[in-house]
Amino acid sequence: MAPKKTTTIKKLKKPAHRKLHILVSNDDGIDAPGIHALVRELKKIGEVMVVAPDKQRSAVGHAITMNYPLRVTKFFKNERFFGYAVEGTPADCVKLAIRSLCEVKPDIIVSGVNLGSNTAINIIYSGTVSAATEGTILGIPSIAVSLTTFEHPDFSYAAKFARKLAAFIGKRGLPEATLLNVNVPAIEAKQIRGVKVTRQGKSRWDDKFELRLDPNNREYYWLAGKLHIIDTSADTDEIAVVNHYVSVTPLHYDLTDYEALKKIQQWKLEKLVKK
Amino acid sequence: MAPKKTTTIKKLKKPAHRKLHILVSNDDGIDAPGIHALVRELKKIGEVMVVAPDKQRSAVGHAITMNYPLRVTKFFKNERFFGYAVEGTPADCVKLAIRSLCEVKPDIIVSGVNLGSNTAINIIYSGTVSAATEGTILGIPSIAVSLTTFEHPDFSYAAKFARKLAAFIGKRGLPEATLLNVNVPAIEAKQIRGVKVTRQGKSRWDDKFELRLDPNNREYYWLAGKLHIIDTSADTDEIAVVNHYVSVTPLHYDLTDYEALKKIQQWKLEKLVKK
Repeated sequence: MAPKKTTTIKKLKKPAHRKLHILVSNDDGIDAPGIHALVRELKKIGEVMVVAPDKQRSAVGHAITMNYPLRVTKFFKNERFFGYAVEGTPADCVKLAIRSLCEVKPDIIVSGVNLGSNTAINIIYSGTVSAATEGTILGIPSIAVSLTTFEHPDFSYAAKFARKLAAFIGKRGLPEATLLNVNVPAIEAKQIRGVKVTRQGKSRWDDKFELRLDPNNREYYWLAGKLHIIDTSADTDEIAVVNHYVSVTPLHYDLTDYEALKKIQQWKLEKLVKK
Repeated sequence: MAPKKTTTIKKLKKPAHRKLHILVSNDDGIDAPGIHALVRELKKIGEVMVVAPDKQRSAVGHAITMNYPLRVTKFFKNERFFGYAVEGTPADCVKLAIRSLCEVKPDIIVSGVNLGSNTAINIIYSGTVSAATEGTILGIPSIAVSLTTFEHPDFSYAAKFARKLAAFIGKRGLPEATLLNVNVPAIEAKQIRGVKVTRQGKSRWDDKFELRLDPNNREYYWLAGKLHIIDTSADTDEIAVVNHYVSVTPLHYDLTDYEALKKIQQWKLEKLVKK
């Protein structure tokens, strides 16, 4: 039978948006509850690929592995493939994903949800942030998400916020060489007062090392300490969280201290070469 | 016998300046030639204490060790005590030195001399720089020094420059929260054209991972790659070195991208909480 001719031109629906491609990593390891909560949410808005460290790699900073081989294994959860586990750091995971494992360049990278805040001085020690930094270096809009507690964590709100932000940034993009560092207060969703775009606060670790003896009477040190907030302005990451706001801090990896640069140019360091 | 009375008052010599106290670390390990060349020079201007990783810890970024004990052993060279070897990262070494091992707070921390440049994007991966960053966080003027070669290194000029700069900064200090990242061209001293105070240049690693098979036929990846300089302005660290200048870059650890911050405050991220 011949197809029926239409007399009116049917208005075509807009094509469904191409699904977002999302790469997920973290520093707590591929079996951490935070990354599973995150992936559950992100699967609602796109294709998710997970490449994460095989075990906890907290406080690794922006370490990468150059002098050792990197091994990759498939990680399964409830007998279903969940993602790739890498014997390396968060930055290794992102590099390896982009350069070798991903078949499609991701639209966005989401790192987290980290157990514990990544605010103020802690940013520079953070493996969670370093995964997003590496993504940004590789030219992909990237966000790091942390939940500001170590006790009885409920990642559900942080994961939902990450999903909404990822959907927004996935479409809108980020300024070149900028990443977002997100800290979500560990409180009930209805208590969240809003979002604040913040700067990195000033803080100081009053750290100390405990000197102990091992079972064979050999000495060892163990790092302990307490974080002190120095800058208590409302526009800092740390204080936004204390005030029940989700903190979103734009970061970059140009570490130049431009203010000091102008001063030090007056110091005539030239003379150190001449004499 | 009664002391002889003096008729003229003898002008007293100015007291000798108190010796500088200098803490030295690196990321190439306590047995690396670069740190030995550095210590030889620094001993000419002060009391030197060495606390460095027990083995090479390159590209560790700002990693610290929280989940494992840190062991410390005494390291001897030609049967004389040289310094403390720490089973940890450069940042661990500086933290442990300041918090536990040093009896006197150092006037200055010098990290290096690193084998290989730490310019442009490499700064964020650098263990050498992280030792100086940690020193700065702890409130001590700190400098990182690198020699821009991996082949046939001669550390003598870089170590001499480090000594002159340390003597200068030890007296003068640095702006609060600023460290200096120094890169010395690997050329003969007489070819050095001067010192440039620079900014961190822009560059990109075109990295790739080689997929190989181990002797048991298991796959592994190994990172390889080539650095591309994107920004070739004369005021960048990388180009200063290419032009035969010692590059001195003031760095800080406020990673806030203030320019992006203003833009993103207009994005009304608030709506992500409301909906």
